[in-house]
Amino acid sequence: MSEFDLIQQFFTWKHDDPTLITSVGDDAAVVQLAPDEELVVSVDTLISGVHFPEETDPHAIGHKALAVNLSDLAAMGADARWFTLALTLPESDPVWLKAFAQGLRELADKAGVTLIGGDTTRGALSITIQVMGTVPRGQAVLRSGAQPGDLLVVSGTLGDGAAGLAVVQQRLALPEQETHYCRQRLDYPQARYALAGFIRQYASSCLDISDGLLADLQHILDASQVGAVLKLEQLPLSTAVAGLSKQQRLDFALRGGDDYELLFTVPPAHWQALQAAVQQLTEKQSVSLTCIGEVNPESGIIKDAEGSLVSAAGYNHFA
Amino acid sequence: MSEFDLIQQFFTWKHDDPTLITSVGDDAAVVQLAPDEELVVSVDTLISGVHFPEETDPHAIGHKALAVNLSDLAAMGADARWFTLALTLPESDPVWLKAFAQGLRELADKAGVTLIGGDTTRGALSITIQVMGTVPRGQAVLRSGAQPGDLLVVSGTLGDGAAGLAVVQQRLALPEQETHYCRQRLDYPQARYALAGFIRQYASSCLDISDGLLADLQHILDASQVGAVLKLEQLPLSTAVAGLSKQQRLDFALRGGDDYELLFTVPPAHWQALQAAVQQLTEKQSVSLTCIGEVNPESGIIKDAEGSLVSAAGYNHFA
Repeated sequence: MSEFDLIQQFFTWKHDDPTLITSVGDDAAVVQLAPDEELVVSVDTLISGVHFPEETDPHAIGHKALAVNLSDLAAMGADARWFTLALTLPESDPVWLKAFAQGLRELADKAGVTLIGGDTTRGALSITIQVMGTVPRGQAVLRSGAQPGDLLVVSGTLGDGAAGLAVVQQRLALPEQETHYCRQRLDYPQARYALAGFIRQYASSCLDISDGLLADLQHILDASQVGAVLKLEQLPLSTAVAGLSKQQRLDFALRGGDDYELLFTVPPAHWQALQAAVQQLTEKQSVSLTCIGEVNPESGIIKDAEGSLVSAAGYNHFA
Repeated sequence: MSEFDLIQQFFTWKHDDPTLITSVGDDAAVVQLAPDEELVVSVDTLISGVHFPEETDPHAIGHKALAVNLSDLAAMGADARWFTLALTLPESDPVWLKAFAQGLRELADKAGVTLIGGDTTRGALSITIQVMGTVPRGQAVLRSGAQPGDLLVVSGTLGDGAAGLAVVQQRLALPEQETHYCRQRLDYPQARYALAGFIRQYASSCLDISDGLLADLQHILDASQVGAVLKLEQLPLSTAVAGLSKQQRLDFALRGGDDYELLFTVPPAHWQALQAAVQQLTEKQSVSLTCIGEVNPESGIIKDAEGSLVSAAGYNHFA
């Protein structure tokens, strides 16, 4: 299959995005922007064997490659609009490509983002997606906005992806149902794009948890020059992770990567309104929010409710 | 070296781009756009051993990874503004990284583009750059605008990159000076970003030559539903390529990839004004333009001046 056939067959999607002037098939894509918006841009690469186990279903790889990028945009409070795909493949296997394109497209359609360009090359399997979105002028939510007194909130549950990876790597054994659940959470992370509008309305700072709660919390604390008290017993855990030993569940929830949940700070005056707003989401988009602590003025320090230091050590690609 | 140190040391560049609200260091970059502009986006991946010989100087790799993307934007008549870098490395080698970052930055500074985000991962060496730029509303130059009677024009000289690759692969022997010249043209392609403004002012269609003149011309003809007569004896050749046998020089000039020159069509009424405008470029940006033929109504067909068919066969990653 030639490069052109491959693009034509799997990645030329009909779209009804009126802002798209031209896309796949020219040297570059052209999109129209409204005058009161800012452009928000994020890029993530997924490497086989690093960001997903080598035998992962290509449908899941397609989903995850887009999900991790949508997650970054949600963390900015931005609405995702368009993305490009740079796909490197050892060979052009139509069965693999069909499933990959399907996983990618299902999430793209759900999230309302349009594939506007890309590049296909031959080499070790890797996928780079860059997603572009918009935010009303001046409303992007940065890591640097947390204030002492703000509540520390996370979406969903923590540690499921890390438990899923531990199961795949045979470092952990779980009953069948829990194995399936954690593997799904690893392979199909739920990017919280449905929260983007609420994040920019209510949050003072935000990021998505990709390197583990503690490592990512540290980024907010450093950028905002504040500290935090974490209520460890309030960390939201799935049934699968809650059933593990205390050491294991804390390790997965605090240090495990691959959650792609949002971690954000909310002024206490906004907390009730945010909870009420999130309850209005449709069943498919619904997500729990949990207050797991509070921001304080102790720059850069994370403590538990008893006042003990909690040390951050997340996933580092070159460590 | 950790991922954070790596980004901090090599890819956190001071900038004075007032449109940049936030960039490296948050989940995504935020840029401000003017209301009368459209956003133009292109992405290209370079794989070691495919897009550059494995022993290539990392300084040249940094240059080339950005140059091929700037070339795509110039072909749209768009001004490049920002780019993201997704860098996959087998190891974090500071000597390699320093040279790579320098090559990248020298070109970025010359072209006036700002690095606004990225991702670093571990794996086989590959570089994906996405470049974003702007064009005045409605002025992007597509492949589909060529009209019968338009002149066919190329920038620079053709076939030098292909000759350089043939030398590296020991399929061709050249004298020392010509070897050096062709290797430079292969490793340091000159993206014609200085022509972007003229392209949108004067050209009816445009693309950059990355797969070989004939294969890329075919894209314009197909998109515009026109044909072309090529004056083969007018192809612009460097001294190095002009000295080869007729068969070799035609092969490099017509079918060699890696030229990254612009191929475009110009209504005859604009040709003189375009030539006069290009002569005003500074010495560093100066580039020759050569008329190599004419557009005719014979949809999809390329003929030479004698009326013989010329067949297109360019570089195809999955052939």
